[in-house]
Amino acid sequence: MSKQRYRIDIAYDGTAYAGWQIQPNGVTIQEKLEQALFELTRHRTKVHGSGRTDQGVHARKQVAHFDLAEDRDPKALARGLNALLPGDIRVSRPVRVDSSFHARRSAVSKEYRYFIWNGENVPPFLRLYRRRVSKRLDVAAMQKAAQTLRGRHDFASFTANPNRPVESTIRTLHELRVTRRGSEITIAAVGEGFLYKMVRSLAGFLTRVGEGAVSPSETAQILSSRRRTARVETAPPEGLFLWNVTY
Amino acid sequence: MSKQRYRIDIAYDGTAYAGWQIQPNGVTIQEKLEQALFELTRHRTKVHGSGRTDQGVHARKQVAHFDLAEDRDPKALARGLNALLPGDIRVSRPVRVDSSFHARRSAVSKEYRYFIWNGENVPPFLRLYRRRVSKRLDVAAMQKAAQTLRGRHDFASFTANPNRPVESTIRTLHELRVTRRGSEITIAAVGEGFLYKMVRSLAGFLTRVGEGAVSPSETAQILSSRRRTARVETAPPEGLFLWNVTY
Repeated sequence: MSKQRYRIDIAYDGTAYAGWQIQPNGVTIQEKLEQALFELTRHRTKVHGSGRTDQGVHARKQVAHFDLAEDRDPKALARGLNALLPGDIRVSRPVRVDSSFHARRSAVSKEYRYFIWNGENVPPFLRLYRRRVSKRLDVAAMQKAAQTLRGRHDFASFTANPNRPVESTIRTLHELRVTRRGSEITIAAVGEGFLYKMVRSLAGFLTRVGEGAVSPSETAQILSSRRRTARVETAPPEGLFLWNVTY
Repeated sequence: MSKQRYRIDIAYDGTAYAGWQIQPNGVTIQEKLEQALFELTRHRTKVHGSGRTDQGVHARKQVAHFDLAEDRDPKALARGLNALLPGDIRVSRPVRVDSSFHARRSAVSKEYRYFIWNGENVPPFLRLYRRRVSKRLDVAAMQKAAQTLRGRHDFASFTANPNRPVESTIRTLHELRVTRRGSEITIAAVGEGFLYKMVRSLAGFLTRVGEGAVSPSETAQILSSRRRTARVETAPPEGLFLWNVTY
């Protein structure tokens, strides 16, 4: 049976979901997509994402692929999926791709963005998409710490205990930028790959630096210790977006 | 008993509420504010808004006043209210005002904005705040119709049956602007006052003009007929924001 591979982009509000990946407890984005594909095609089809996102984490752009036995017009397919999916999951840019394309393995780099509302009151319309930090953060100190974290390092200090052992905790951070615009602080992280809860650990650590609880000069020592410390906290999921995947 | 009057700004996501004004069925913004004030002060206090908003309508900036028997620091008062209110209602800019200030009667003009997502898929993060219109709208035609509606007119054709009889249906629209930025179309209406469901009627009518269902040249005739017609539809509430109140 010859199959056709399709690639889609997916945006989602993660608030109501137990993350991307199918799991026994809680509804997931992957599950919703596979259900909608089954309703459309009457075939069980596995949807492969570029990677997992945790419970409550959002995606501006997640990328996935799947194979169908029958050829379908990609636009009609996306329209059908969106008609079946809830409004907090939207599919876009459907295309036929060669079977050599793999959403996870073909990814060259990923960008995550973590958004902090640095003020007393998050506007009601952003309340599900921002971490609130009341105390004014020192962005210059955060930028200094980010500068030390950029590049190729062993990030063992910046991952939560993973469910499965990881071969290596060495990763390359191409970018780690901290910017402020009014009350909004954005932490953008670009890399080939990230460890479990690595972006939220980086965001949590940089927030503590911004609060003055940790000095940016301690960053190098925390990194080289390769051990998780209380100075590295895991920032809550609502501020995090999978922002882009490049191939 | 001498009283002190306070003025606050309020932003709210109207999705979960039966509108601004207290009513027997459904939770309202006014009710939430009065409950929070009671918890803070142990006095029943009436909160006066600049005007009502309907079920499901949002506010970027609603303005209200209330009187307290005891003098309170305005900032502490706002902080206390925000601690008691849910995240979809936020209070800001608390100030003491003279008892001559009245949130409704002192208002000089109000601005409403109606937001249309003119495309197939509303981004998940905007789904509660945009009306989706798939068909590409002709913004030039909408602007032409808006031009005719601007100014002082009898807007009887652009109001829903009000609960109570209104003395006059004559109002002045200082501004009625239609703009497009990418997939987003914004209808901004500025006036001294608006009739019941007038902004949603204007937005619904302009949308039908944009779809080509009504010609902009019919606008003057619909206005002068002073009778509601099927060509004027009431646009759904989720796209509407009370944007500003000026004093």
